[in-house]
Amino acid sequence: MGKLKEECGVFGIISTETSELAADVYLGLFALQHRGQESCGIVVNDDGLFTSHKDVGLVGEVFTREKLASLGSGNMAIGHVRYGTTGSGGVRNAQPIVVDHIKGRMALAHNGNLVNSVELRDELEMAGSIFHTTSDTEVIAYIITKERISTPSIEEAVSNAMKHIQGAYSIVLMSPTKMIAVRDPHGFRPLCYGIKADGSYVVASESCALDTVGAEFIRDIEPGEMLIFDAQGIRSDRRHCGELPRTLCVFEFIYFARPDSVIDGCSVHSARVRAGELLAKRHPADADIVIGVPDSGIDAAIGYSRMSGIPNDVGLIKNKYIGRTFIQPGQSSREDLVRIKLNPISSVVGGKRVVLIDDSIVRGTTSARIIKLLREAGALEIHMRVSAPPFRYPCYYGTDIDSPERLIANNYTIDEIRDILKVDSLGYLELEDAENLCGCLKGFCSACFNGKYPTSEPVKKGKKRFEYRISEARERENE
Amino acid sequence: MGKLKEECGVFGIISTETSELAADVYLGLFALQHRGQESCGIVVNDDGLFTSHKDVGLVGEVFTREKLASLGSGNMAIGHVRYGTTGSGGVRNAQPIVVDHIKGRMALAHNGNLVNSVELRDELEMAGSIFHTTSDTEVIAYIITKERISTPSIEEAVSNAMKHIQGAYSIVLMSPTKMIAVRDPHGFRPLCYGIKADGSYVVASESCALDTVGAEFIRDIEPGEMLIFDAQGIRSDRRHCGELPRTLCVFEFIYFARPDSVIDGCSVHSARVRAGELLAKRHPADADIVIGVPDSGIDAAIGYSRMSGIPNDVGLIKNKYIGRTFIQPGQSSREDLVRIKLNPISSVVGGKRVVLIDDSIVRGTTSARIIKLLREAGALEIHMRVSAPPFRYPCYYGTDIDSPERLIANNYTIDEIRDILKVDSLGYLELEDAENLCGCLKGFCSACFNGKYPTSEPVKKGKKRFEYRISEARERENE
Amino acid sequence: MGKLKEECGVFGIISTETSELAADVYLGLFALQHRGQESCGIVVNDDGLFTSHKDVGLVGEVFTREKLASLGSGNMAIGHVRYGTTGSGGVRNAQPIVVDHIKGRMALAHNGNLVNSVELRDELEMAGSIFHTTSDTEVIAYIITKERISTPSIEEAVSNAMKHIQGAYSIVLMSPTKMIAVRDPHGFRPLCYGIKADGSYVVASESCALDTVGAEFIRDIEPGEMLIFDAQGIRSDRRHCGELPRTLCVFEFIYFARPDSVIDGCSVHSARVRAGELLAKRHPADADIVIGVPDSGIDAAIGYSRMSGIPNDVGLIKNKYIGRTFIQPGQSSREDLVRIKLNPISSVVGGKRVVLIDDSIVRGTTSARIIKLLREAGALEIHMRVSAPPFRYPCYYGTDIDSPERLIANNYTIDEIRDILKVDSLGYLELEDAENLCGCLKGFCSACFNGKYPTSEPVKKGKKRFEYRISEARERENE
Amino acid sequence: MGKLKEECGVFGIISTETSELAADVYLGLFALQHRGQESCGIVVNDDGLFTSHKDVGLVGEVFTREKLASLGSGNMAIGHVRYGTTGSGGVRNAQPIVVDHIKGRMALAHNGNLVNSVELRDELEMAGSIFHTTSDTEVIAYIITKERISTPSIEEAVSNAMKHIQGAYSIVLMSPTKMIAVRDPHGFRPLCYGIKADGSYVVASESCALDTVGAEFIRDIEPGEMLIFDAQGIRSDRRHCGELPRTLCVFEFIYFARPDSVIDGCSVHSARVRAGELLAKRHPADADIVIGVPDSGIDAAIGYSRMSGIPNDVGLIKNKYIGRTFIQPGQSSREDLVRIKLNPISSVVGGKRVVLIDDSIVRGTTSARIIKLLREAGALEIHMRVSAPPFRYPCYYGTDIDSPERLIANNYTIDEIRDILKVDSLGYLELEDAENLCGCLKGFCSACFNGKYPTSEPVKKGKKRFEYRISEARERENE
Repeated sequence: MGKLKEECGVFGIISTETSELAADVYLGLFALQHRGQESCGIVVNDDGLFTSHKDVGLVGEVFTREKLASLGSGNMAIGHVRYGTTGSGGVRNAQPIVVDHIKGRMALAHNGNLVNSVELRDELEMAGSIFHTTSDTEVIAYIITKERISTPSIEEAVSNAMKHIQGAYSIVLMSPTKMIAVRDPHGFRPLCYGIKADGSYVVASESCALDTVGAEFIRDIEPGEMLIFDAQGIRSDRRHCGELPRTLCVFEFIYFARPDSVIDGCSVHSARVRAGELLAKRHPADADIVIGVPDSGIDAAIGYSRMSGIPNDVGLIKNKYIGRTFIQPGQSSREDLVRIKLNPISSVVGGKRVVLIDDSIVRGTTSARIIKLLREAGALEIHMRVSAPPFRYPCYYGTDIDSPERLIANNYTIDEIRDILKVDSLGYLELEDAENLCGCLKGFCSACFNGKYPTSEPVKKGKKRFEYRISEARERENE
Repeated sequence: MGKLKEECGVFGIISTETSELAADVYLGLFALQHRGQESCGIVVNDDGLFTSHKDVGLVGEVFTREKLASLGSGNMAIGHVRYGTTGSGGVRNAQPIVVDHIKGRMALAHNGNLVNSVELRDELEMAGSIFHTTSDTEVIAYIITKERISTPSIEEAVSNAMKHIQGAYSIVLMSPTKMIAVRDPHGFRPLCYGIKADGSYVVASESCALDTVGAEFIRDIEPGEMLIFDAQGIRSDRRHCGELPRTLCVFEFIYFARPDSVIDGCSVHSARVRAGELLAKRHPADADIVIGVPDSGIDAAIGYSRMSGIPNDVGLIKNKYIGRTFIQPGQSSREDLVRIKLNPISSVVGGKRVVLIDDSIVRGTTSARIIKLLREAGALEIHMRVSAPPFRYPCYYGTDIDSPERLIANNYTIDEIRDILKVDSLGYLELEDAENLCGCLKGFCSACFNGKYPTSEPVKKGKKRFEYRISEARERENE
Repeated sequence: MGKLKEECGVFGIISTETSELAADVYLGLFALQHRGQESCGIVVNDDGLFTSHKDVGLVGEVFTREKLASLGSGNMAIGHVRYGTTGSGGVRNAQPIVVDHIKGRMALAHNGNLVNSVELRDELEMAGSIFHTTSDTEVIAYIITKERISTPSIEEAVSNAMKHIQGAYSIVLMSPTKMIAVRDPHGFRPLCYGIKADGSYVVASESCALDTVGAEFIRDIEPGEMLIFDAQGIRSDRRHCGELPRTLCVFEFIYFARPDSVIDGCSVHSARVRAGELLAKRHPADADIVIGVPDSGIDAAIGYSRMSGIPNDVGLIKNKYIGRTFIQPGQSSREDLVRIKLNPISSVVGGKRVVLIDDSIVRGTTSARIIKLLREAGALEIHMRVSAPPFRYPCYYGTDIDSPERLIANNYTIDEIRDILKVDSLGYLELEDAENLCGCLKGFCSACFNGKYPTSEPVKKGKKRFEYRISEARERENE
Repeated sequence: MGKLKEECGVFGIISTETSELAADVYLGLFALQHRGQESCGIVVNDDGLFTSHKDVGLVGEVFTREKLASLGSGNMAIGHVRYGTTGSGGVRNAQPIVVDHIKGRMALAHNGNLVNSVELRDELEMAGSIFHTTSDTEVIAYIITKERISTPSIEEAVSNAMKHIQGAYSIVLMSPTKMIAVRDPHGFRPLCYGIKADGSYVVASESCALDTVGAEFIRDIEPGEMLIFDAQGIRSDRRHCGELPRTLCVFEFIYFARPDSVIDGCSVHSARVRAGELLAKRHPADADIVIGVPDSGIDAAIGYSRMSGIPNDVGLIKNKYIGRTFIQPGQSSREDLVRIKLNPISSVVGGKRVVLIDDSIVRGTTSARIIKLLREAGALEIHMRVSAPPFRYPCYYGTDIDSPERLIANNYTIDEIRDILKVDSLGYLELEDAENLCGCLKGFCSACFNGKYPTSEPVKKGKKRFEYRISEARERENE
């Protein structure tokens, strides 16, 4: 439905005793499912023996009772949900990946995107390396492996690898005896950890996953920090901390993360309510009712209502059964996916001047369709408010925006967009407001709004940057 | 999660031209999925040739692209989603049922429950009838068939059958050349119809299904009314209208129906908002915040907030991926289903006096668990408000409540329930308020609250009343 | 591959103790799978409580470990494999059927075909009966039920029903307390029983199923005999025995039954070897090698070789993995299903004069293709011998032959067929030889060869005779 | 059923035009299914773009219509069926593998087993390589890739790699523009090629796969030969031919290959018939009947019968529906898998002195069970003849025999085995006869019979030799 595709989520658990840890990872991945619905996987480590399953599909589809049981027991386990920002989809690029190297086996789950993976991969291939996937994760595994040869421990290898890999990465990995969680020095993507009542440590992309498995939140892993978990307990390696300025993705707060998560000390829900409040300040409207587009506009609608005094109501009902299994039947022209998913409540919007809150406008087609439905349901005026600034630049850090030419804000002025959407007024969140949603928490990447990238830009861009090289390969082959 | 199980939903469409009507039924059933998640089915009528598919599962599971395509084209089609209030589950009792009789073939989908089906079935069996299912629907099919022998048309047979069957029924049926929609004279369950731009007539349990397929709502079918659709158009047979007082199920407004539906002229969402307002009047609370339990407490929370002036906020996030495929992994004791499905937002409820709105308390265990989660998230006080009166009596009209001994309101006073749930105060909707949620629309069945049944009570009760007779059958067999 | 479709198989078991009888039925159905590959089902009777599962597919597909386990334990169980000779396919017509009637529940599995089911069904419908299936089995269930009202026991009802139903039927049925096996007075289809070491009685269409479950064969159930099994043991009711002449289907020996079965005292394998011997006598050939078309021509090839002295060899290899899951990929024209399934061995047939034995020629296309493959593999001469007489008339007793116009032997003389198939000579089994394959066992139905039907012919013919009535129903409806 | 597990099969096709080549590979893999039933895969190369699907299961299970269609069109495609002789099973080790390297993409399917893969893998890991699988195939891919850096073409890289890899390998691989087929200098495993009428070249493990896709057999690929197929046509690189003596696996003739295949000029069926003849010469029996254990003893039974003059007959019927989907239901003790799969024909063996021919005795338990069934069916004497020498040594070249301690011939003398099996006499094929089954074709590996390995033995043995190293890895990790 024209939304930004989300990215990935990682989860890890280490226990002092062998138990059915796959159950916890399963629950944790359910809590992180919003971060990636394309594929998922779990690897269980039973004292050095790795058992894994991964496939294309939602967690509830991939992990049947039988498959979950087949993972057995272990003392560590990691999991991953993937949307897939580098490399095409399919089971080939599903994570975690499990590889053998000179010092043993390693499983690795990664959220983020490197900006120098093409260069790293070229170097590795030049030295005879082969690649089974087209994802950054395999590049990271290689770099760690190369470092591992000459370092006394896996954590040293990871720390050394961090000197080579650039970009966004929140990683959970397992060696036969250790679980390691590491967040890139910029802290682009969230990563936190907590503890269960039985003493198991849990690492997750978002705190909502800790809640789901009944773990108490301890703290966020800091930008540049590496945590090493093993039978001896937990150690923090902070040698890369502070190397680079924090540039946490602001879109985590605006759209990606679950509202019940807390990232780097800031409640996602509160940030969204705050976005609504700031919108109401900057872009007031003379209206009767405020409604949010479910699910992601709901929080900001509360803020807008609160600041403006205009009552908030439920104006659109989302069909909660339309999921991956839904097939668009019949002639596509006659049925309309937006209408199937969202239905306005006429008694709420009929005869009213409506403030409509959504979290973003990507291409504009979905918004236009929603607005048409509301008009048909009798809305007199529609004042659209967007709880994010206009989206204009590609993201190189793990979200699926790489075709600036299709972004409506890149092709039209705000007044033009207003006319295209046929709304009575249109207001976006101001960029400076976006960076002030989290109170005292500062330091964001807003590159998708302002084009100011905290790192160098990748030499080859785009999700399928390794696939694109295939055609070259045909020539190269015949050199 | 301790909710009342819902009932059933029916959908039908008749077109002037042969087309892929299964696509419309598929969409209509998606819109009605909340009325039954156990099994579903579609029958397509192509000029007398009936093609059907039904199975256990959600619409999106049962109807794969291949299965949907296999239904082919037709000029009429009906569908059903079932929870199953009579007869055990399984594909055996899935609907619509298709039967052959002396005058041809008939397909039948039914929402509701008869109160005299045991007597009817006994009579039929005495005359040599055999039954393939344990559902009321087959009894109805038999009664219609018996009448069909001596009547000149299917509609006369249906009208005659209505003299024999008692209870709740909203039925859509097809003969080779006609589609018939009929609602019992009490009008227990909703049924409405509309028209698509291409002239196809659509019948559905709720108006939200008309919206989903892009049909314009015409009107509700009246209690006792029968609509006959065929190549000649549409006729209304109202000879049973007004025979009995309207006793529309009040729980359709409180819980069953989708908030975007309009039933007998009243918006479901508005009725729920009104319930919240009335709750605020009768049971005010000195609190900081109002939160609704998603999804069904959200509407009433708006009403409570609006009437009381206490701000409404999002206090609990529901995991939208936990569906039928979810399996409870690991030791059931260590994981908690409520916590997996619902997560409180600490920044909203922490340090606050909270008004918590839910639509019902059945056994009380889920409510107790939610309240515990909110306490852990820092709520100072919790004032629970229930947007329905206490639930005390079984329902014989198509909802799954037949064990009064497990209903918490049957075993404890409201003060005791308050203590059991560990809330600071507890208030239910008053019965008289429940019957005033819909403005000028009057005439409800509130039997589940007050035990005043609009019909005689069935001689044998309970969902599996035909299964229970098996043991008797062993004796009877040896007579 | 142009073969006659087989018919159905039935299996039943009754134990003195409650145990996992579904396991035995599962194995028994595996042994009878050759009798029907379209759908299958099992019903378990646990002291009056019937649990069943049936679906479209092979036994190994329909009964997963989980489904089999879901059938639980019981003291009786019956099962069915179906090809479907009356009524279209699909789960709707899968067996066993389970119905409730005035004296309790009944499950019924049937192999055969009635010749008066249309009349019986008409009568029943005239009295208000409804039908869920288009199979004879439901008609039989109705007739038994009608009789049950006025008879003191299920066995009396079955015996009375036998006065009304005409045609081929080998039935296993269960009431809450009894299992009944009955074979029609003509004995068209086989039915036998045996006993397991633990005292359980087992009934099966063929003796190979008794072998598979480790039961000792006791004897064939006689034409017209009914066996009643219950907690008291076993009783034989022979009142219908001898009413009509035995007319056992000769094609059971020639093609349908498994070679390791013994029917009415005669080994199927021996009958086929004998057919080969008689072919060699009547149609000698001057050849180097005898090969059978696998699997059904193998036995007769042994007989031909033995009688003629020409060596027998393996000349065609059948791909044993090409089953129901095989899909014909690519352009159908470029790939050839016969070549995919059968491959000649050049070293065997190259440069040889070959006697090729098959059990039947239906339309002739498969035979022509096999002959072409053998020519390409270097066969010098091909002398085709068919271990059955020419197939000319439809079968009304449970095999799928009802389009005489497509039978090659109905359209061409033997000399013409020889030329069409491009063989050097062609010989069929003589009709009188066909009736002498089983030594002293006499009394066969050879109607498919000579048109002499042992019963009256059905008024409406054809597998879909109830479906065909739909169009009439449209008219009738508007009477 | 106690059989040797088979190995792997490879298939490849290259066309001058883009077409749905996956269809041909699908058919080819169906023909090679007997060589591996654990997993399978297909990779289609559309002018440098590789599309693949592989999974655990039979070809007919893994490749549904939808999956096959998803592979699209291409100008080259390769496929693989796997039993898995190195590395554990599962989708992780399924083939073909697809990897990217400095000069492009490569897909590789392999039948055989290296004897120096541990050493090669150690070297590669020492240089920083990571491994995703535990199969030899990935080692081969790496070695080729390493060579590719400094060679002008993929074929030079393959040729150079052949200097490093030792053991059994029949490989089909694709680069973006070429398909290469190569057979190890010993020629352990078969590999042949042919041409279709449309000019497509086809490579396959066995000639039966060429027959199935309608390709004309051209010739076997010679030991050490590499064929390079591309848009320019076909070239043979024979620089490794003749380097080493031919040591074709004799068990291909005795058991592995399909009887309708011709390997290195010798018909498999003829070799098996010859084995039967030689058995009859060496181990005559005074008996009435010769029967083969289906399917693999059938050919030798013909030879024994022919040489001895004792008539051959069908004595055991194999249930052709018992496949991968079969689950052993109920208590395993009460049901007997051999009896479920094989049923004796009493009329054939009853009262007879039987010569029973099987192709091997591995542990002896299956043979003992068959013999018991024959005794129960009335066999008076049983003279067992085995169409292979006693099996005593592990195979390092791609068959699953690595536990000599479980081989009955390693633990008992032939007289003892005779007594264990309770046969009246027992005769094995003589080793010298085994090497003379193919007429003038000489040069076999009989290591499994005589322990004379044509190569050095691997330093670590066993199918899971890379898995075993995991525990070491735990230590190594902490170095």
